[in-house]
Amino acid sequence: MEVAFIGLGTMGAAMAANLVKTGHRVRGWNRSPDPVAALAAAGGHAAASAADAARGAEVLITMLADDNATRAVIDDAVLGALAPGAIHANMATVSVAFTREMADFHAARGVGYVAAPVLGRVNVARDGKLNILAGGEDALLDRLQPLFDVLGQKTWRFGARPEQGTIVKLATNFMLASAIESMGEAAALARSQDVSNVDFLDMVTSTVFAVPAYRGYGMAMANGQFDPPGFKLSLGYKDVRLALEAAGTGEVPMPFASVLRDNLLDNLAHGEGNLDLAALGKVSARRAGQQD
Amino acid sequence: MEVAFIGLGTMGAAMAANLVKTGHRVRGWNRSPDPVAALAAAGGHAAASAADAARGAEVLITMLADDNATRAVIDDAVLGALAPGAIHANMATVSVAFTREMADFHAARGVGYVAAPVLGRVNVARDGKLNILAGGEDALLDRLQPLFDVLGQKTWRFGARPEQGTIVKLATNFMLASAIESMGEAAALARSQDVSNVDFLDMVTSTVFAVPAYRGYGMAMANGQFDPPGFKLSLGYKDVRLALEAAGTGEVPMPFASVLRDNLLDNLAHGEGNLDLAALGKVSARRAGQQD
Amino acid sequence: MEVAFIGLGTMGAAMAANLVKTGHRVRGWNRSPDPVAALAAAGGHAAASAADAARGAEVLITMLADDNATRAVIDDAVLGALAPGAIHANMATVSVAFTREMADFHAARGVGYVAAPVLGRVNVARDGKLNILAGGEDALLDRLQPLFDVLGQKTWRFGARPEQGTIVKLATNFMLASAIESMGEAAALARSQDVSNVDFLDMVTSTVFAVPAYRGYGMAMANGQFDPPGFKLSLGYKDVRLALEAAGTGEVPMPFASVLRDNLLDNLAHGEGNLDLAALGKVSARRAGQQD
Amino acid sequence: MEVAFIGLGTMGAAMAANLVKTGHRVRGWNRSPDPVAALAAAGGHAAASAADAARGAEVLITMLADDNATRAVIDDAVLGALAPGAIHANMATVSVAFTREMADFHAARGVGYVAAPVLGRVNVARDGKLNILAGGEDALLDRLQPLFDVLGQKTWRFGARPEQGTIVKLATNFMLASAIESMGEAAALARSQDVSNVDFLDMVTSTVFAVPAYRGYGMAMANGQFDPPGFKLSLGYKDVRLALEAAGTGEVPMPFASVLRDNLLDNLAHGEGNLDLAALGKVSARRAGQQD
Repeated sequence: MEVAFIGLGTMGAAMAANLVKTGHRVRGWNRSPDPVAALAAAGGHAAASAADAARGAEVLITMLADDNATRAVIDDAVLGALAPGAIHANMATVSVAFTREMADFHAARGVGYVAAPVLGRVNVARDGKLNILAGGEDALLDRLQPLFDVLGQKTWRFGARPEQGTIVKLATNFMLASAIESMGEAAALARSQDVSNVDFLDMVTSTVFAVPAYRGYGMAMANGQFDPPGFKLSLGYKDVRLALEAAGTGEVPMPFASVLRDNLLDNLAHGEGNLDLAALGKVSARRAGQQD
Repeated sequence: MEVAFIGLGTMGAAMAANLVKTGHRVRGWNRSPDPVAALAAAGGHAAASAADAARGAEVLITMLADDNATRAVIDDAVLGALAPGAIHANMATVSVAFTREMADFHAARGVGYVAAPVLGRVNVARDGKLNILAGGEDALLDRLQPLFDVLGQKTWRFGARPEQGTIVKLATNFMLASAIESMGEAAALARSQDVSNVDFLDMVTSTVFAVPAYRGYGMAMANGQFDPPGFKLSLGYKDVRLALEAAGTGEVPMPFASVLRDNLLDNLAHGEGNLDLAALGKVSARRAGQQD
Repeated sequence: MEVAFIGLGTMGAAMAANLVKTGHRVRGWNRSPDPVAALAAAGGHAAASAADAARGAEVLITMLADDNATRAVIDDAVLGALAPGAIHANMATVSVAFTREMADFHAARGVGYVAAPVLGRVNVARDGKLNILAGGEDALLDRLQPLFDVLGQKTWRFGARPEQGTIVKLATNFMLASAIESMGEAAALARSQDVSNVDFLDMVTSTVFAVPAYRGYGMAMANGQFDPPGFKLSLGYKDVRLALEAAGTGEVPMPFASVLRDNLLDNLAHGEGNLDLAALGKVSARRAGQQD
Repeated sequence: MEVAFIGLGTMGAAMAANLVKTGHRVRGWNRSPDPVAALAAAGGHAAASAADAARGAEVLITMLADDNATRAVIDDAVLGALAPGAIHANMATVSVAFTREMADFHAARGVGYVAAPVLGRVNVARDGKLNILAGGEDALLDRLQPLFDVLGQKTWRFGARPEQGTIVKLATNFMLASAIESMGEAAALARSQDVSNVDFLDMVTSTVFAVPAYRGYGMAMANGQFDPPGFKLSLGYKDVRLALEAAGTGEVPMPFASVLRDNLLDNLAHGEGNLDLAALGKVSARRAGQQD
């Protein structure tokens, strides 16, 4: 397929490369030029601008940092450059409100719009093993499926509205942050009886919670290894904020999310925004007077 | 070994049976008589009282419902009946304060005391695959290890004080309840955009949280199957209460545990204490006006 | 002074009338025409548009519903119509972010900008007894002081930046909502021992908390009189939301505000947004199973 | 009347002295001897023991530190020494569970029992201006009323069961702690925009919350004057703990109380238990990175 791929950060680059490898014609663009060159060197095509990438594409995939970065790129020039009947699949994590805004913007211009954020980090993206959380009309998703099958191990469809993909991604990220907070509190509790964080977290992430998400964050917490971050705490805060924003719109009380927000603000107020999200556990320790 | 086993509920009965099978001489007692007869029929020995069970035993294992049930059984008659140098391994989930009380009570009477609560339900107990969370002196644990190797797949040692086993068990159960609450809130969030609980919880417990604890509670929540309970909500509330009590003693703020307490009280106030702990998710749905 | 007054709702109308009475020349405008006619009938002057009200005014006072309502009115036409060196005092409750936006907008156009939200309801406004919470440069506030002395019993100055007035207003409204929540929880606690809400709330608002805010909301809660609302719950939610938004920017954990947000969402999800803010107490009662 | 008064701390001493002054025959006892001597010097009578104080008394008033202190004093000897038909009025703040225990203990011995905790500090006690929060049978309260009229400005009756007086006291103290927490969070919010705690708290406790409780704690917080404590933080924590314990029994979710518990534990973990309860505000400041 003719694919425009905008946003070639570590995730986007890995995804675009897989599309190239499987024979799709991918024209890529990125704000900074190096990843564009890298894509071209790998058999893709370098675009001089977002609109240039979009020119004649049947599918536009964007993988940009957030609402604002996406809003800055998607305009009439880009949508107008796409082939007739093209579809835009936004695979980044953005807000529900922005998803609605984008859906309306595309509808008014006759371009299909799908939200398809992903679960998995860069190594998973490289292996084409992402889980894709799709919201969009089945007819659109059917056409995208061949691409999604390259990028991910499974595509989950949550409904015809793009917001339905977005909200599932936000809900999942909220659960991840909750898992970390629960480890932080539990470890502080155990330590109040002089059980070390390593002993406790090793056990719990080897037994009841023997799953990579718990294991990775848990051992980082136990060992105090927060830098370099695997997933930056400030981005975890952003996702919790977006979940709460959507919960406000949907009139859903989320007391765990509220605790997460307050504790992540505690992190930020202590200059810990650039650490790994596992540093959320520092708040529990600090409040219990357990700093080392 | 000569083992006294007091408390032959479903868990205790499965554990005692495994000890019998592996050649240990087990004298069992239980408040209600049927499980005692069953143990005897399977090759164990029926005791007429707790003290009778204890008579001459090198190891006393108790698996009783809670602090009060244990306090009602363990007295001078029972401890006095044990063989000299005997050890009492309390494998039930009790409070930290009671663990300290028991430790002192045994120390004053020259009986070794170990806390060794377990992770795993009845089927795991039957398979001898429990995880044993031990707090006690190494010399005592070393002597118990042959029995623990029959009962569990692994014994985790958290320190020389019995409370250290107890608190790890409470911290782990707190994490389980937190996992359920996070599913409840996330599912309510997703549903505010008309994503069904089944669609969301099936995905999330098949991907990031593909571990039996999440899967079991998550699908029970998704399908509204709370009766008969696998783990009764009122018992989950008790464990959260014990975790908070220990957190008070240890001066550990635990905002997630506080949310759990409040939400489980909401359950209790709505007559849901006898449902499965997965019914915690009903609180999130109810508050969001999503009752069916 | 020559005063333009835009936003003649119940509060604005009462304030503008006081300015007229004390000899100021007030040109008023409002989206709906009746209050404009009423102002004219009382000795003020009817303007045909916001810009018409502003024409030649030394001071512009706005008292509009929220950020959006204010943004919709304040534009180059209005600011350009003011007399040279004019000052705009925004006396409504808006967000901190919008206050910053307005401050920049005015600075770029050489118009002084002051935030001066008020404490007090309509009857207090009528009596000229408001408390005015001012953020702005002293030189500007000095010039406004004669008008503020008509409108209020006291003007409190919190700093040279308009946001400083805004945030104090949001912090105060957060405290009001907290007072109501604390009454709701306390009344539910007392009622769990069959102490009636009336007995408890009458006592507590006559003794330790014998102050109109507690008394008014408390007796409304005790008597279940939530309609017509004195202060609409949905507006209380908005203020808590704005406080949390500012807390996010300022990196301030506010767990009480988080509880308020969740409980007010519970109200909204149960269709109680148009009731009086005292209906926040219904959440505590409902969760405790104490509905009548 | 013949009154036995046990517990002559600062509050008890002031109350007993008022009874002496108004012509009642008061026999006092206290664990430490000085206050007993002081009572005798002021016209009361020194008792050599609790039972000695009780001998022949028509009314026993106790004003002891907590459940344990009261349990240690009230026994068969004391109750047996009272005049036939005597009444025991417990005017201290104790737990609901202990109140029930005491009520049963007295009922079994044919002694009337009333809970009558008070609102007001020592100076209020000295002026005989306490508010008395009574739970007990009307016939008993009627007989106590002449004494209560000496001690307090008003007696509030909440029902025939002693627990009803106890729970109202706990609910009120919870509201006080909530007021302090709301000031702490609001002040931290305002300070995030560089509004000083003094400026904000002076305003808010002079206007909407112009009541001694807010004013006293608020200005202590603003000025960082936490030592010597007016009301010790560790006692405030105890009261919140008792409120939560009662809420557990009554199945009442109390999220504000849960936040208070966690924040007071944060205080305790930082060695602030002996400061004034206003130091609760230090938690909000610390978490927001606003320490001086």
